[in-house]
Amino acid sequence: MLFLSETFNVNPDALAQALNFDSSTGAVGSIDILWTLLGAALVFFMQAGFAMVETGFTRAKNAGNIIMKNLMDFAIGTVVFWIVGYGIMFGKSSEYFGGFNFFISDGEIDFVHVIFQTVFCATAATIVSGAMAERTKFSSYCIYSLIISLVVYPVSGHWIWGGGWLADLGFHDFAGSTAVHMVGGVAALIGAKILGPRIGKYDENGKPKAIPGHSLTLGALGCFILWFCWFGFNGGSTVSMSGENAAAAGSVFMTTNMAAAVATVTTMIFTWIKYGKPDVSMTLNGSLAGLVAITAGCDVVTPAGAAVIGLIAGFAVVLGIEFVDKILKIDDPVGAVGVHCVNGALGTILTGFFAAVPVGGDESLLGLFYGGGGKFLGIQFFGVVVVIVWVVVTMTIVFNIIKHTVGLRVSAHEEIVGLDIEEHGIASSYADFMPTHTVVNSENSNDDIEVAVPVQVMRGSVSDTEHKLANVEIICKEERFDRLKKHLNAVGVTGITVTKVTGCGVQKGNTKFYRGVPLDFTLLPKIKVDVVVAAVPVSKVVEAAKKALYTGNIGDGKIFVYGVENAIKVRTGQEGFDALQGIDE
Amino acid sequence: MLFLSETFNVNPDALAQALNFDSSTGAVGSIDILWTLLGAALVFFMQAGFAMVETGFTRAKNAGNIIMKNLMDFAIGTVVFWIVGYGIMFGKSSEYFGGFNFFISDGEIDFVHVIFQTVFCATAATIVSGAMAERTKFSSYCIYSLIISLVVYPVSGHWIWGGGWLADLGFHDFAGSTAVHMVGGVAALIGAKILGPRIGKYDENGKPKAIPGHSLTLGALGCFILWFCWFGFNGGSTVSMSGENAAAAGSVFMTTNMAAAVATVTTMIFTWIKYGKPDVSMTLNGSLAGLVAITAGCDVVTPAGAAVIGLIAGFAVVLGIEFVDKILKIDDPVGAVGVHCVNGALGTILTGFFAAVPVGGDESLLGLFYGGGGKFLGIQFFGVVVVIVWVVVTMTIVFNIIKHTVGLRVSAHEEIVGLDIEEHGIASSYADFMPTHTVVNSENSNDDIEVAVPVQVMRGSVSDTEHKLANVEIICKEERFDRLKKHLNAVGVTGITVTKVTGCGVQKGNTKFYRGVPLDFTLLPKIKVDVVVAAVPVSKVVEAAKKALYTGNIGDGKIFVYGVENAIKVRTGQEGFDALQGIDE
Amino acid sequence: MLFLSETFNVNPDALAQALNFDSSTGAVGSIDILWTLLGAALVFFMQAGFAMVETGFTRAKNAGNIIMKNLMDFAIGTVVFWIVGYGIMFGKSSEYFGGFNFFISDGEIDFVHVIFQTVFCATAATIVSGAMAERTKFSSYCIYSLIISLVVYPVSGHWIWGGGWLADLGFHDFAGSTAVHMVGGVAALIGAKILGPRIGKYDENGKPKAIPGHSLTLGALGCFILWFCWFGFNGGSTVSMSGENAAAAGSVFMTTNMAAAVATVTTMIFTWIKYGKPDVSMTLNGSLAGLVAITAGCDVVTPAGAAVIGLIAGFAVVLGIEFVDKILKIDDPVGAVGVHCVNGALGTILTGFFAAVPVGGDESLLGLFYGGGGKFLGIQFFGVVVVIVWVVVTMTIVFNIIKHTVGLRVSAHEEIVGLDIEEHGIASSYADFMPTHTVVNSENSNDDIEVAVPVQVMRGSVSDTEHKLANVEIICKEERFDRLKKHLNAVGVTGITVTKVTGCGVQKGNTKFYRGVPLDFTLLPKIKVDVVVAAVPVSKVVEAAKKALYTGNIGDGKIFVYGVENAIKVRTGQEGFDALQGIDE
Repeated sequence: MLFLSETFNVNPDALAQALNFDSSTGAVGSIDILWTLLGAALVFFMQAGFAMVETGFTRAKNAGNIIMKNLMDFAIGTVVFWIVGYGIMFGKSSEYFGGFNFFISDGEIDFVHVIFQTVFCATAATIVSGAMAERTKFSSYCIYSLIISLVVYPVSGHWIWGGGWLADLGFHDFAGSTAVHMVGGVAALIGAKILGPRIGKYDENGKPKAIPGHSLTLGALGCFILWFCWFGFNGGSTVSMSGENAAAAGSVFMTTNMAAAVATVTTMIFTWIKYGKPDVSMTLNGSLAGLVAITAGCDVVTPAGAAVIGLIAGFAVVLGIEFVDKILKIDDPVGAVGVHCVNGALGTILTGFFAAVPVGGDESLLGLFYGGGGKFLGIQFFGVVVVIVWVVVTMTIVFNIIKHTVGLRVSAHEEIVGLDIEEHGIASSYADFMPTHTVVNSENSNDDIEVAVPVQVMRGSVSDTEHKLANVEIICKEERFDRLKKHLNAVGVTGITVTKVTGCGVQKGNTKFYRGVPLDFTLLPKIKVDVVVAAVPVSKVVEAAKKALYTGNIGDGKIFVYGVENAIKVRTGQEGFDALQGIDE
Repeated sequence: MLFLSETFNVNPDALAQALNFDSSTGAVGSIDILWTLLGAALVFFMQAGFAMVETGFTRAKNAGNIIMKNLMDFAIGTVVFWIVGYGIMFGKSSEYFGGFNFFISDGEIDFVHVIFQTVFCATAATIVSGAMAERTKFSSYCIYSLIISLVVYPVSGHWIWGGGWLADLGFHDFAGSTAVHMVGGVAALIGAKILGPRIGKYDENGKPKAIPGHSLTLGALGCFILWFCWFGFNGGSTVSMSGENAAAAGSVFMTTNMAAAVATVTTMIFTWIKYGKPDVSMTLNGSLAGLVAITAGCDVVTPAGAAVIGLIAGFAVVLGIEFVDKILKIDDPVGAVGVHCVNGALGTILTGFFAAVPVGGDESLLGLFYGGGGKFLGIQFFGVVVVIVWVVVTMTIVFNIIKHTVGLRVSAHEEIVGLDIEEHGIASSYADFMPTHTVVNSENSNDDIEVAVPVQVMRGSVSDTEHKLANVEIICKEERFDRLKKHLNAVGVTGITVTKVTGCGVQKGNTKFYRGVPLDFTLLPKIKVDVVVAAVPVSKVVEAAKKALYTGNIGDGKIFVYGVENAIKVRTGQEGFDALQGIDE
Repeated sequence: MLFLSETFNVNPDALAQALNFDSSTGAVGSIDILWTLLGAALVFFMQAGFAMVETGFTRAKNAGNIIMKNLMDFAIGTVVFWIVGYGIMFGKSSEYFGGFNFFISDGEIDFVHVIFQTVFCATAATIVSGAMAERTKFSSYCIYSLIISLVVYPVSGHWIWGGGWLADLGFHDFAGSTAVHMVGGVAALIGAKILGPRIGKYDENGKPKAIPGHSLTLGALGCFILWFCWFGFNGGSTVSMSGENAAAAGSVFMTTNMAAAVATVTTMIFTWIKYGKPDVSMTLNGSLAGLVAITAGCDVVTPAGAAVIGLIAGFAVVLGIEFVDKILKIDDPVGAVGVHCVNGALGTILTGFFAAVPVGGDESLLGLFYGGGGKFLGIQFFGVVVVIVWVVVTMTIVFNIIKHTVGLRVSAHEEIVGLDIEEHGIASSYADFMPTHTVVNSENSNDDIEVAVPVQVMRGSVSDTEHKLANVEIICKEERFDRLKKHLNAVGVTGITVTKVTGCGVQKGNTKFYRGVPLDFTLLPKIKVDVVVAAVPVSKVVEAAKKALYTGNIGDGKIFVYGVENAIKVRTGQEGFDALQGIDE
């Protein structure tokens, strides 16, 4: 530890050495390293932000799966970027491909550079998980995530940041609107398209349905973490605090924050007008959109330019997400495509309009609005298109190979009961709370798993209490709820009451482990559906329920019939038979 | 990226230039900028801390609204502070008002300074949202939050930090006990007073009732985040690592941490003695109180002084929160007034006792306990009073204008069902969990929405199963529960069983959007209340329920009557009629 | 705030003074201090990480208690480390004990060093709380946590980092695999052993049962926070950015991240093979294990060495946790022993194999695999053993004294209903959600609180509806559920349905406070158990329930008997009596 010496008679060389000052470059190594490592730590922490956003915006039954994916893409990415990716990205073999430098063992190694680039690589990989959430096989996720970090990201990264051909053209992507976010966002789009939508996301007419996330609070926490870390992502990308870079870092902080703030306000107002209420989760996406859009040009635009970029991003994210959802009919649970793909491309191109500082000192590389005459804009546009083509081609191949070998998607059953239980053996990521997923989010069809009820079980022996009041109580698995509802509607039932219960019976087989210890699964989540009827005969309700629930497997459920002495509808005061007619309330 | 050069023969000027060394001030620009930007990023992250504390300490039905408010105050604040606020605060026009410098376009701009001040400004604005949580209109929130960042905070900020008259007097508020926290805390107090308490907070005798927060865990996470970021808030306020400022930063870290730790321990012990148990959420407030209190003087007190300030803050926060809650009868859901207003003022004044270093080198400006003779203490006290007066006057005007134009408070209905659904169209911020808000937190009165039951529905036809055992099952909206309970008690019902259920009926109108997509609202949360009676006639229970639930609108609910064959009270073994007498258990 | 001056003619002494350059040591004070303070802030934030991991991996009913413990160990630790601990650790009295320097008042004080060491000390203390979670008295926790920070950690810390005898031997523990993590982990092991397992953790044959945590999402967030902060923990431990330390910091970031990533991947694959599925919570432990293991040698190993250490840690954590759980039969809810004790020791010893840089420049102190010849390995091994002995001896004494005076463990009742309500008066840390703890996690025995049912209540008057269908509805406290289930099984009941309900009756006494305000406790969580029977006589079910529930106290519950008109088993179509035979489903 240090003390402040009080007498000085300093040899400038000793001081320069202590500061790792390189007089040939004018860089003060110590302070530049400190700044870059701080940036690396913050960019690492973005993983927590992404994990919270993606988990919060999806359903509780998949929470463990999503955080596991976010954890693994970073861990796997770190390893393969070290073994292969870094060499491809920063090797000097050619303009198009850096070359191989396995384990970064060749030549002098700058670990500060390696760690900073590693955390950026993992950011690109993690974006994909959000768009493909709630239905992607975990094993397939590990594979394509590995390939992104291994080769897809490093190749286009080489073009942009590794001294490749786009960099030579004058393409400017300061901290990665294109190199990181658009690469991740395009991969996300391709993946979500090939994967298909979640069960229940589109109705029979192709109209999208809302599937709300299970914790807006955690989603918001994730956004705050991302905004915080973006100061490291953009600010740290100066990788220097020497000379003019110090002032540049201040400017980057200013423009980054400005774009994010303006985008947030814009999205809030735009959704307020468009949907009648300020939409919380969309506004959170708006903040991220502003951050993504400013990333390419945060070093060369003015605060006013950043504000305009933020303004455009605030609209673009809403329209982008709706376009993906409603026109392309691609199911992107967290809006990753609208945020990272749309605004990554947009922000890179907008730099071509708003760059107020000549890139690399070349006066011809100014934004169109700042006297650049369109040359720089053209380069930016070209670069975006080239990278889109690269990612679309490679990821289409990758996803299709996975789809036709190990398979990309989980089974319908697995998707309905949740990936946590099937992929990881977790009964619930919120053990003490018993989430109510299937009941709240009606999955529109699991008709594919319908099974004919054998004729022999259709005995006419149900005590016919027609036109008497009766409560038919049906206890079954949550995942059959939508079928049950449909069948009950078909026989004229207009109102039911659903209760979450726990069924407790004899367990057999199918042991699951939690931290290596078998889980006690004798208590199973079920739902109880109460149908009080008068006009509809009990026997019809029972037959409808049997039809909806029968699979022939243990666990199909039970039905009980109770007598009801009276029923009263509060609004009208009607009693008995009359109380059960008309609209249910 | 940098490499460490190995031979040196350095020109001192080149080295100084690389470090942005200004020999006239002795400041090493690079390192000072790095330190200040790090501070800015941390102070930004406080927004996450505040969002988690405020959300965790309030109810689940308002979670989306609260995080949205925390997001928007920062976003709006960033924009208006840039357009107007910064000019008012740091302009040089006069001692009392800095002047206008729209979009900070005039003269040389130091972006590092701007971003650092922006995040501080937003901190003041965000404090208000906690005290006014769970009942403030979102639109009104946006307006007054904007005004605080636009003018209220900048004016008093100019006096203290912008070279204004309080600074000239020798008033010392190092990182903002007064300038940030007390300004926010006083605005919070005025706002909560004008707004009035939440429904159910005070009973008919004016006695406060506890309304527990929905996630102590997230509240605690928020406190940890705030404590972490406070190292940037206080430490970063040296805005320098040059010369003596480096040691000063270490001292600031030490005193900041010490005051927080001692305040935490003090509050824990004090609540243990006072309430019989160590109160978790109050102790978390205790940590924050210590941090707020040390903020004014963290650079001029010793660790021992900091410990004493923490000790006092630990008591002050408990007494302050109780005073606001029980004596002033102002409803502050998260304790913002007790933490920020009380301890902001207290910490500033205590600096007048404990300043061990002469402020600005003026030996007469020492704390009373360190030979300052009271002059400095007087200045501190005066400054606090002046700022209180400023904020009380301006914010009283602001809140009253809002109250009488757009309105400050949501409707009683909106408050009861939650701001998430009414202000933002979110069915629940925790979609898969169905929180049980109304049942757990009994709202004492929604009598204002009582409606007379039309005479014609009072038919005497309820089958009179008097003195037989019967179960009257009532299915209704959660928000009517307290009325129902009261009416059932009135007819002699002593025990009921409440179950959360989901009613499923035909939906009509009232479409809500989630991320631009219509939400499927056919499944509605309801409660089922079971009343097993013997002595009380079924007809009386049914009439009481009808009275409690009737509004004449669809959704008033239904009542079913079941026969019960027997009832057994376990403790006494009593059966039938006898089992249902006496205290319910 | 700073501006970049443009003309230079610099006096090197002025520059050196601004940078606090000490030419005798070659340290640039300003930048070293900045780096160390940044590290201190990050290590502080680990408290948030530990709090989230420990809370997320345990049950909701103890959440408030766990966060309170994590808060208090830091607050108490800060105070006692200041008063006594720091003097013991860094005093120069002897090789074995630093001496006393109360309130660090003696001699010149380096606050940067003090704050950095304070946050490390608190990390050691906080590790213990995880292993002893869900059953330790809060008061006892405060006491032993205080003693760890006061004397246990400082003494072994003095040996390793305070210039003591292990340091002199050449023992190398760069950032505290042994000094911090193993000390905490061994204390955790001793504590959990003396405390005994949680009720329900082991069945009658001593087989461990899984008790899943209540929020994997928060647990994962905690792990991400810890990984993030570890860059400060290990990186900051260079406490310098001068000269070669700058490059060293980059290398530390690289090795730290590599070990964590490889350990994560290893654990994921290992659990996949071992349990059939990739275990989420174990993999999160794997990340932490890699971080703990690399901490001792992160400055002296290569990235490849770090990868191998991570690989070993990934296996070790799984085997370690299973060994503790299944062989030692010590109940460690969060895996603290497997992570911190096992990998703390392992990482320190592995440094003896993989150190590629001679420690302290002494060429004989190289790892065995790098030509060190085993001397260094021997020293590492010896140091680990010595510290284990120290902690085992002192903590065994400490825990036993506490156990036999104030008591270490809460009562069985308190443990079953949760520490939140009994230790802190919190009805639930998640007020709006009503967690379902007892139902989900079956506690195998609370037979110790069995009470004989008085004979006089055994009246034969239950209406005997034998062989008719009947629903026996039992309403009781959650904590009696397992007894009830066992007694019902004993009389032949094979299937039941459990519903979470809220009982609402007359309250008496037992006021609890939330933030100083009495809580309204008239709504109490209960469970409703429905048993539909045919073959088993109603009277037998009722008697079994009475036996299971009777304590003679108010709140024993009630039983209702309803007639059932029919029952249908969906799978077979069987009706009436037949539907209720065989396996329940």
